[in-house]
Amino acid sequence: MAEKQKRLEEKIGKVPEIFKELEKTDPDLYGKVIGLDQMIWADGVLSRQTKKVIAIAIAAALRDDHAIRAQMAGAENLGVKKEEIEEGLRVAFLLAGMPAYVHGKTVLEEKLGDKSKR
Amino acid sequence: MAEKQKRLEEKIGKVPEIFKELEKTDPDLYGKVIGLDQMIWADGVLSRQTKKVIAIAIAAALRDDHAIRAQMAGAENLGVKKEEIEEGLRVAFLLAGMPAYVHGKTVLEEKLGDKSKR
Amino acid sequence: MAEKQKRLEEKIGKVPEIFKELEKTDPDLYGKVIGLDQMIWADGVLSRQTKKVIAIAIAAALRDDHAIRAQMAGAENLGVKKEEIEEGLRVAFLLAGMPAYVHGKTVLEEKLGDKSKR
Amino acid sequence: MAEKQKRLEEKIGKVPEIFKELEKTDPDLYGKVIGLDQMIWADGVLSRQTKKVIAIAIAAALRDDHAIRAQMAGAENLGVKKEEIEEGLRVAFLLAGMPAYVHGKTVLEEKLGDKSKR
Amino acid sequence: MAEKQKRLEEKIGKVPEIFKELEKTDPDLYGKVIGLDQMIWADGVLSRQTKKVIAIAIAAALRDDHAIRAQMAGAENLGVKKEEIEEGLRVAFLLAGMPAYVHGKTVLEEKLGDKSKR
Amino acid sequence: MAEKQKRLEEKIGKVPEIFKELEKTDPDLYGKVIGLDQMIWADGVLSRQTKKVIAIAIAAALRDDHAIRAQMAGAENLGVKKEEIEEGLRVAFLLAGMPAYVHGKTVLEEKLGDKSKR
Repeated sequence: MAEKQKRLEEKIGKVPEIFKELEKTDPDLYGKVIGLDQMIWADGVLSRQTKKVIAIAIAAALRDDHAIRAQMAGAENLGVKKEEIEEGLRVAFLLAGMPAYVHGKTVLEEKLGDKSKR
Repeated sequence: MAEKQKRLEEKIGKVPEIFKELEKTDPDLYGKVIGLDQMIWADGVLSRQTKKVIAIAIAAALRDDHAIRAQMAGAENLGVKKEEIEEGLRVAFLLAGMPAYVHGKTVLEEKLGDKSKR
Repeated sequence: MAEKQKRLEEKIGKVPEIFKELEKTDPDLYGKVIGLDQMIWADGVLSRQTKKVIAIAIAAALRDDHAIRAQMAGAENLGVKKEEIEEGLRVAFLLAGMPAYVHGKTVLEEKLGDKSKR
Repeated sequence: MAEKQKRLEEKIGKVPEIFKELEKTDPDLYGKVIGLDQMIWADGVLSRQTKKVIAIAIAAALRDDHAIRAQMAGAENLGVKKEEIEEGLRVAFLLAGMPAYVHGKTVLEEKLGDKSKR
Repeated sequence: MAEKQKRLEEKIGKVPEIFKELEKTDPDLYGKVIGLDQMIWADGVLSRQTKKVIAIAIAAALRDDHAIRAQMAGAENLGVKKEEIEEGLRVAFLLAGMPAYVHGKTVLEEKLGDKSKR
Repeated sequence: MAEKQKRLEEKIGKVPEIFKELEKTDPDLYGKVIGLDQMIWADGVLSRQTKKVIAIAIAAALRDDHAIRAQMAGAENLGVKKEEIEEGLRVAFLLAGMPAYVHGKTVLEEKLGDKSKR
């Protein structure tokens, strides 16, 4: 199943560390979760890129820095543009307040800072 | 400013009732809010349609039926497809749990029920 | 303890129905909750009125219509002004998004509508 | 616009770092946000100080440490008293649970600790 | 799969209406969701009954009346006692505030009222 | 009252630092809070252990790392098993999304890591 995970990473970006551990301790739950995950992220009428923007906007609206970081990492691997994320975060601003935007924007700047240092 | 509101409705769908009232009682705040609103919804690197899908997904993740309904009404006016909303709600499922999906889906079914009755 | 409850109502506005029932089914928990409640609402460096505005703003930020209604009822009994609530809701707008404001404002209009009908 | 920002800081306390950056990258959005912000924080029937207490209580209720810190910094600049914040946090306790109170209180102690070290 | 659903209902209580519809429109997603669902609710070191109490407490903490109702219906089918739900809701009170408790308690009273009318 | 606190710790696990301070600065509020706390955690139809699992699941659903840590510490003192917490977190997954589970699981792994290092 390591192979499956690798292919998954190529496609959706990143499997959270916790789920790698789950693969060993509870392969059954792992399988179910990954199956659902894979179906949700697959290209459909919305592209995987658009779905990642949605996920980041939701995570920002929920002020969940862990989730913002995880989704942002996935977005990067899929080539989502900074401007798309920025516009998604503005919708989060309207729907969930200025701090929601600040949470998202802070992680976005972090990521860009990391990149420019490389 | 009624004219401006009408043009706005043609463009973004729907101005919540509460803001129509605000236009009279506090035109200054109204102006600021509408200005921000207009900028956030305008076409950018993301289309207005995509932004509505994001807004619905956020509203579902926040389990906020009022907001889901308001955004869904806007989405309808912009010609967002049912399938796009459905896929956005699945991302909300993953990020915010099954009830988030159920909230969004329930309003979506309501809307579609309304339409088929016409 | 009915006497205590009445005096409490005169002072803070309203004891939720659920707690009246609790008084009978679990007087011990009831006593603890009411004791805490009473201490929190008492005049301090902030007046009871200001505390009600805070409570309404929090309830709006949490998009909790039940809680908004309960706190609004209490605010009314204490003579909190419509304008104070309105300004508190704007802070909720900034911190928790437009729908938070809409939730609060909707209940506020309801209350005012009820009053003008009397 | 740096001048405007400085005057704003004198008045409301603190403009989040992220918005300083926004001033350069997107002056238009920056202008709208600051305009709305300024209107919401201005003295009205509630003083700017009271509004800050409301903002802190909301941020605590949302368990948003970033927002608590940002609002607390603003409150400090405006001379809001520790006791006022403490009483606002108790309302957050009642409306949003003990951890909401703990979040707010932890940042409050931090700030006070910082000050005594100076 | 209707058979599977029926057995599921016997075991966990209730499949939300929305998922019955999903079975037709998107059997693939339906299968994944139900699979995950089934695994999560199965007896483990915690009984299905205890899990339902947890679910109700979470739904109350999230102030999500739809979810409270859905989980409460499931709990009823599994023979969870009123007192267990009541104690779970008290934990929600502490962790998420008095309104969280009131949301849960209100649905609990509704259910009990329904039953006594039969 | 230090004695009372110690007995409390033996029973429920851990009193948050903030409340120890409260004992000095505001013994009255402290007394009310501890009284309520004690009643909520006492063995009833649900054991204290089960209540801790509920509390952890709620804290995870609210994505509140501070609260997860505080409840997890209490759970440890009461001898709650890792597997029980794990199953509670799965219910949080279903009700509040994958990141809720990840928040809880991350703290759980941290704790276990700490222990194996001793």
